[in-house]
Amino acid sequence: MKYGQFDATKKEYVIQTPNTPLPWINYLGTQEFFGMISNSGGGYCFMIDARKQRLTRYRYNNVPMDSGGRYLYIKDDQTGKMWAPGWMPVKADLDVYECRHGLGYTVITGEKDAIRVSTRYFVPFNESCEIWETDITNTGKRKKSFTLFSFVEFCGWEALNDATNLQRTLNLGEVEVDGSVIYHLTEYRERRNHFAYFAASEKIAGYDTDSESFLGRYNGFHEPRVVAEGKSRNSVACGWNPCGSHSIRITLKPGETRKMNFMLGYAQNPENEKFSAPGVLNKKRVRVTLKKYLNRKNSEKAFENVVKQWEELTGRFQVETPYKNLDMMVNTWNQYQCVTTYNMARSTSYYETGIGRGIGYRDACQDLYGAVHIMPPERSRTRILELAAIQWRNGATYHQYQQLDKKGNATIGVGFNDDPLWLILGTATYIKETGDWSILEEQAQFDNNPKDTATLYEHLIISVKHIMEHRGPHKLPLVGRADWNDCLNLIMTSIKPGDTFQGDATHASLKDKIGSVPESLMIAGQFVWAVGEFMRMAQHKKDRKNEKMAAAAVKEMQAAIIKHGWDGEWFVRAFDRFGKKVGSRENPEGKIFAESHGWIGMASVGKENGMLEKALDSVKERLFSRHGIVLQQPAYTKYNFYLGEMTSYPPGVKENGGIFCQPTGWLTISECNVGRGDQAMEYYKSICPAERESISDVHRCEPYVYAQMIAGPDSARFGEAKNSWLTGTAASSFLAVSQYILGIKPEYDGLLIDPCIPKGWKGFRVHRKFRNATYEINVVNPSHVSKGVKSVTVDGKTLAGCILPDFKDGKHHKVEVVMG
Amino acid sequence: MKYGQFDATKKEYVIQTPNTPLPWINYLGTQEFFGMISNSGGGYCFMIDARKQRLTRYRYNNVPMDSGGRYLYIKDDQTGKMWAPGWMPVKADLDVYECRHGLGYTVITGEKDAIRVSTRYFVPFNESCEIWETDITNTGKRKKSFTLFSFVEFCGWEALNDATNLQRTLNLGEVEVDGSVIYHLTEYRERRNHFAYFAASEKIAGYDTDSESFLGRYNGFHEPRVVAEGKSRNSVACGWNPCGSHSIRITLKPGETRKMNFMLGYAQNPENEKFSAPGVLNKKRVRVTLKKYLNRKNSEKAFENVVKQWEELTGRFQVETPYKNLDMMVNTWNQYQCVTTYNMARSTSYYETGIGRGIGYRDACQDLYGAVHIMPPERSRTRILELAAIQWRNGATYHQYQQLDKKGNATIGVGFNDDPLWLILGTATYIKETGDWSILEEQAQFDNNPKDTATLYEHLIISVKHIMEHRGPHKLPLVGRADWNDCLNLIMTSIKPGDTFQGDATHASLKDKIGSVPESLMIAGQFVWAVGEFMRMAQHKKDRKNEKMAAAAVKEMQAAIIKHGWDGEWFVRAFDRFGKKVGSRENPEGKIFAESHGWIGMASVGKENGMLEKALDSVKERLFSRHGIVLQQPAYTKYNFYLGEMTSYPPGVKENGGIFCQPTGWLTISECNVGRGDQAMEYYKSICPAERESISDVHRCEPYVYAQMIAGPDSARFGEAKNSWLTGTAASSFLAVSQYILGIKPEYDGLLIDPCIPKGWKGFRVHRKFRNATYEINVVNPSHVSKGVKSVTVDGKTLAGCILPDFKDGKHHKVEVVMG
Repeated sequence: MKYGQFDATKKEYVIQTPNTPLPWINYLGTQEFFGMISNSGGGYCFMIDARKQRLTRYRYNNVPMDSGGRYLYIKDDQTGKMWAPGWMPVKADLDVYECRHGLGYTVITGEKDAIRVSTRYFVPFNESCEIWETDITNTGKRKKSFTLFSFVEFCGWEALNDATNLQRTLNLGEVEVDGSVIYHLTEYRERRNHFAYFAASEKIAGYDTDSESFLGRYNGFHEPRVVAEGKSRNSVACGWNPCGSHSIRITLKPGETRKMNFMLGYAQNPENEKFSAPGVLNKKRVRVTLKKYLNRKNSEKAFENVVKQWEELTGRFQVETPYKNLDMMVNTWNQYQCVTTYNMARSTSYYETGIGRGIGYRDACQDLYGAVHIMPPERSRTRILELAAIQWRNGATYHQYQQLDKKGNATIGVGFNDDPLWLILGTATYIKETGDWSILEEQAQFDNNPKDTATLYEHLIISVKHIMEHRGPHKLPLVGRADWNDCLNLIMTSIKPGDTFQGDATHASLKDKIGSVPESLMIAGQFVWAVGEFMRMAQHKKDRKNEKMAAAAVKEMQAAIIKHGWDGEWFVRAFDRFGKKVGSRENPEGKIFAESHGWIGMASVGKENGMLEKALDSVKERLFSRHGIVLQQPAYTKYNFYLGEMTSYPPGVKENGGIFCQPTGWLTISECNVGRGDQAMEYYKSICPAERESISDVHRCEPYVYAQMIAGPDSARFGEAKNSWLTGTAASSFLAVSQYILGIKPEYDGLLIDPCIPKGWKGFRVHRKFRNATYEINVVNPSHVSKGVKSVTVDGKTLAGCILPDFKDGKHHKVEVVMG
Repeated sequence: MKYGQFDATKKEYVIQTPNTPLPWINYLGTQEFFGMISNSGGGYCFMIDARKQRLTRYRYNNVPMDSGGRYLYIKDDQTGKMWAPGWMPVKADLDVYECRHGLGYTVITGEKDAIRVSTRYFVPFNESCEIWETDITNTGKRKKSFTLFSFVEFCGWEALNDATNLQRTLNLGEVEVDGSVIYHLTEYRERRNHFAYFAASEKIAGYDTDSESFLGRYNGFHEPRVVAEGKSRNSVACGWNPCGSHSIRITLKPGETRKMNFMLGYAQNPENEKFSAPGVLNKKRVRVTLKKYLNRKNSEKAFENVVKQWEELTGRFQVETPYKNLDMMVNTWNQYQCVTTYNMARSTSYYETGIGRGIGYRDACQDLYGAVHIMPPERSRTRILELAAIQWRNGATYHQYQQLDKKGNATIGVGFNDDPLWLILGTATYIKETGDWSILEEQAQFDNNPKDTATLYEHLIISVKHIMEHRGPHKLPLVGRADWNDCLNLIMTSIKPGDTFQGDATHASLKDKIGSVPESLMIAGQFVWAVGEFMRMAQHKKDRKNEKMAAAAVKEMQAAIIKHGWDGEWFVRAFDRFGKKVGSRENPEGKIFAESHGWIGMASVGKENGMLEKALDSVKERLFSRHGIVLQQPAYTKYNFYLGEMTSYPPGVKENGGIFCQPTGWLTISECNVGRGDQAMEYYKSICPAERESISDVHRCEPYVYAQMIAGPDSARFGEAKNSWLTGTAASSFLAVSQYILGIKPEYDGLLIDPCIPKGWKGFRVHRKFRNATYEINVVNPSHVSKGVKSVTVDGKTLAGCILPDFKDGKHHKVEVVMG
């Protein structure tokens, strides 16, 4: 069944049945202050770092599911009933329920017994708070009087500590109540100079700041004592669990609406201005913000700004094709997800608990594919240089770095051998989008050492050489601790429960015999692609020596793939510590893998001799299911410590035969590379969230964003998605559909037009801002081909070739493309 | 109000009102398999390690409070109602509710609409399972038919990972159902060779193993869909959240009772016998256990054994005094808590989340005071030698070690300068109880290095020297990173939120100027006491050289305390990094502290010149409140990073003016040392749990065990306890009451009789097993003195002095003591 539908005009997803199979969430905020909000108001917010500065508490994987969030309660004088406009947590039947997730905001509306409560949640640009604009309407024919209660539960800032160090944390809670503003001051007395607040624009009848006082002993969020009694207790938290709750008495004539604002925010004071009197919070600064946004006129203006900003961001790429779900995803949701993924890394979602804090090397570069055209170029530039700075002199890179200090994460260390290549790919992506070659000349540190630096270009040379110097017996790249498939672990022998599968930074196996044998075909394919990009940079710099070095390396790698990687009908995945094939017809299980084909296909290796097409046919035949492309088949039925974590999963999930959605993007690209537009589209559709909306009871995750994984045919839950939102799938799918299917491809010298579409398509339109110009591209396909461009005219003039010039003129340009 | 009462005959605490202010818990198990159970069935169980091998899931500090546990539900055919005999989680009103916490078992009974369900939970000796013996009775006059549902939620073994690594864990869940046995097999396919099971003795009508299937989407534990529908769904978990639930159809005639057993346990198979067929659990071994304990006769026998064992354990020390609450605590609950504290270290309680795994150096030695007379001597002996082995050659000791590998915890490191003295005190406690001097000759490693060992006696010499070599400007012991008061931190300057307050093992301040200034009067007092014990050992070994060394050191330390530690009316607490007094009339806040007086008083320093009595008067005047002795006064109103974490707490809680209960024990001893039995008793009573039973709504924690802390007068929650069960208070109070008030004191040569009682007492009786004899001691106090023994007769013969001989004859001896 469906639980909602897309509203294309408003760029919203509209949920009308509250008990979605899983909480369907949205994000608020884009800069420093972020929130996660589910369709029934669950979730939390934080400032910059979801672990270290969490404002409100959220208990993951709780019972009931999605407990805790931004709650409003109504206690109706006439009926005596208590209910919540977001359905949760009370779950009282509503006469009307609607949740509208938009770009950067969510509107939740609930109505019962003629009281309608509608709240719009968003974070204003350049502010560290979220605003709840609540409109309350009497939709009936009699006067209604009732009490509205707000509720949030505060977090003691450091989220893991808050959940585990109870012998300390349950003693710390402190609050201050001033008029309609509740200040959460836990640890403000000591080393924090920041605090949280929860404010109401209205005169309040009462408040509560102590959870137990509000809820009542042994009560759940669904049955707060204070709401049942219709009266706040004016509790002042002293340790235990501080919360914020206002009560507001409301009487409405039929048809009357009352508008009010709530604000939930973070503020700080200078160290020497923390207190206005001993123990009294200095409220001077925060009052300015409060005054501004508790005013509805100002908050509405701020909201309009948020909408405008998102329109501008996503407006850089808009399409109109015969396939409406594609348009829906590309124009709105896929781009939105790409930005969210870029902002959140893999920190905060319904599955990521916000306490693992690193930004992944590979992830950050992957995410650029989807976000580089949207983000201000400085942000991408900065991130690439931060990534360069956690590379070692020998070319290895840390696998993660911390957002706050930008330092490589020494605990996790180096040795994921695809990482250095991602630096090349990230840099290429950036230059192609922006035309900013100067980034190559920027100095970047090695291992965060200010005394040891080189240009980014030199970092890239070192990356190339690092892979060439770390090859195995078949002259293919060593896999190290893992490549993109973090769970294919070929060097560790993990036997004890709880032991790492990948080995650690200092693990001897990295240097010993075992580490010098296992090879990855995925990295080999990636190498061909990435070093091809590097060659192009060397050409630009007229660095003949390294251009030649790179060309030779690519040739050598291609030859090794063809010679050692071919298994007869497809490419193998890897070689293990014994030099034996992984992903070969010789194996009883795990005969064929998606990843190596994705990257060999993206790099077009084996295209000339027909191997690639044959291999892609095998992928289709053996890995493609109605829910997407399975990572490998047959799934492993037993744990095999020579293969690692992959085989620790039950068959059909995650890396053991699950449908990891990201490779579906890669294989879509690969199909485009061999010119098979219909097949590419079939792959694209198979995991397209909007396409899966109609099977929401199977898919379960949000129908507007990609999930990391869908259970494969070996699982009893075939077709069920998990881990939505924060996945490289967002970027991979965007890359596939925008640059390969639609074929609007930023190149170093301009915008290449090279579509690969279903033959049935008559054409499509693209609106694309690129560097400093806007291209209105109309593609027609009179001969119903998948690939091939017969002519391109720009502003009425025929173009030689398919690369639209880099106009740099800030103007609109009409582009007519005829395929054939 | 009271929520229950003591049943002295059965040695049980009986709760009759289920909504206790906080969950009132009990422990099941004493060897490897442990459980925590609240009065309404909340809690969890684990095998050996609460973090690494947790069987069932428990979400700490949840809403509702105490959610998740061992649940039974009834769905009554006649009324259609659903309810739970433990009240939680359904919270339906019960006609009868009773929880009986006994030693090692808990019985929960609930009755509604003529169905009575009574379940006895316990862990048999030498088994890794808990048994639920459930008796169901029709107490009415008509036939009753209904369905009983059981429910537990499984944990994915590693508790922190289970709660946070959702992108992995939600994919792992696997189960197998075989008849009435549900097997939880998560990760069994890979590196675990152990599994959990939940079995019923009855033929079941159905089962569920998937939480969402059982509960229903967005439902809480209080409203499981399956129970509401009256029918199991026979769900088989595939990832997500595995659970175990049986449904059993029951029809009872009036007065009829049906008895059944459930078993929740841990089992393992040899690595090569994990499966009986591919993917099928080998059940051969576990079936033997299942068959045994699903049989009620066998389980009843096992239960009787548990009761008998606890009677033997606590029976080694039994008293009869004019003060019934003292008897209740000493004879049963205080001893029970001491054993629990010894078993659990500080791992698993309602406040300790079971994921911090170290055994504290200081804690382990403290706990011995309360447990050494109960535990088999080998266990105490082993633990002392384990503690010796984490000492460094220079005398410093790690602050914690891990239960599984016995290694010093390098992350936490060394530098808590009271630790080395605890090794002496622990050893003394052991020798005095057992007479086993041979422990001194045991070889023990340094820093867990098998190549670097010395006798325990040499370790003790090194401990003494370490303190002497680490003294500050006043020749008093350096405090290091902290002494007993972990939150009085004199060497770190912690400014950033989240930074450690105590510094870390490698922190430069330990070696620099700052670290070489701050001194602790608490350690000074402890030194006098501990090194006094060491002297006695040196005498025994005829090691004149070290006896002399120790005597001189004690003298020097006593002189330094008197000279530099006296503040005029009391002793100071410490000297800070500037050499200034902490805990002095010179300070505006924190003028006087409890800890230094506890230890100086226990060591009787300043007794001769009247300082001690004067200081203890000051303690009474300035620190004693109606809820116990406050740690320091006045509380700090501001954070002071020269004093550390202590000042991070709001006034009145924890180390900032809270009533830390352990020092109350020390000061009780100190009062006995100056002969003031009435004052000692007043202190003892002030924190005595049974005494506080009548103010349960203020105290909130269990009235049968000590809590770590009670909020002090500066807190809005004055009198409220926190962190019950796992606290050194258990042992300190037992030491105070048994050895100092009652004065039954194990000494090296025998059992010393030296009571210090309230003058009003006419006498008391003590039954004491000591080494290999039993002493039936009758003390009479005809002259109504507090202290002083006029005569002692043993088996009719007058004894010279007060030390009962060490008979070593396995016999009973009658001891008559006349005070005066």
